[in-house]
Amino acid sequence: MTITITAFERSPDGGKGLARDTRVRWALEEVGQPYEVRLLSFADMKAPDHLAIHPFGQIPTYEEGSLSLFETGSIVFCLAEQHAGLLPKDRDARARNHVDVCRAQHRRAPDQRINDGKILECDKPWSEERSPLVKDRIVSGPATPP
Amino acid sequence: MTITITAFERSPDGGKGLARDTRVRWALEEVGQPYEVRLLSFADMKAPDHLAIHPFGQIPTYEEGSLSLFETGSIVFCLAEQHAGLLPKDRDARARNHVDVCRAQHRRAPDQRINDGKILECDKPWSEERSPLVKDRIVSGPATPP
Repeated sequence: MTITITAFERSPDGGKGLARDTRVRWALEEVGQPYEVRLLSFADMKAPDHLAIHPFGQIPTYEEGSLSLFETGSIVFCLAEQHAGLLPKDRDARARNHVDVCRAQHRRAPDQRINDGKILECDKPWSEERSPLVKDRIVSGPATPP
Repeated sequence: MTITITAFERSPDGGKGLARDTRVRWALEEVGQPYEVRLLSFADMKAPDHLAIHPFGQIPTYEEGSLSLFETGSIVFCLAEQHAGLLPKDRDARARNHVDVCRAQHRRAPDQRINDGKILECDKPWSEERSPLVKDRIVSGPATPP
């Protein structure tokens, strides 16, 4: 069954590998599975056809016959479950891998907050004063209520 | 082997179940595994003993013999892999479950951004003007660079 993934038609990082399809491509290459890539514009990502596959209108997605997936972590994890080489068989080693996957997904939140400031709030009067506060939160970890 | 998890000594939500140990307790109850709970104060969470198990100094953690885990999603997933009843066996259904787990972990970021504003920046001059911008981002989904 042909595997098709989606990626940016024009990557915001100029193709340096920071777009999240890189992780799926990497996993596919590691397990030796051939795949096709459907390139999408930013408008394509918000079109009904793509929203039917990815409700948040993002890349990457994964299609294989009747199965369609989104969320990079889950795509990589599905590949790791189906093909040898990415996931240990030993229970404890496997468990620690799950920690790493969840952490990689979950702990991206602080980076996104920095990007919010840089991209979405760069013209706001608070931008300069707020920036070091956000960075400091990443160094000191998530907030713990008093 | 005894399973021990950690939880807040005094939950910020007054025990309404929003603290993340709830998810681990729920999974343990579903699979019928007995467990002990070690309650931690906010100071305990940042103490070296706990940081050795959870590098971000949070709850919950999971200990079973020599295995110690953090990240709620990974703990629940490990339980689901080891015990029947939480994870489908069918490949496609299982894959869709992985999407849900990743999404639940990953898409929390916007909630955390609202909490940042409410808890950590409530005394800042930009708090009032910034709040609707952050909420709007959650409704309209993550930012897509131009």
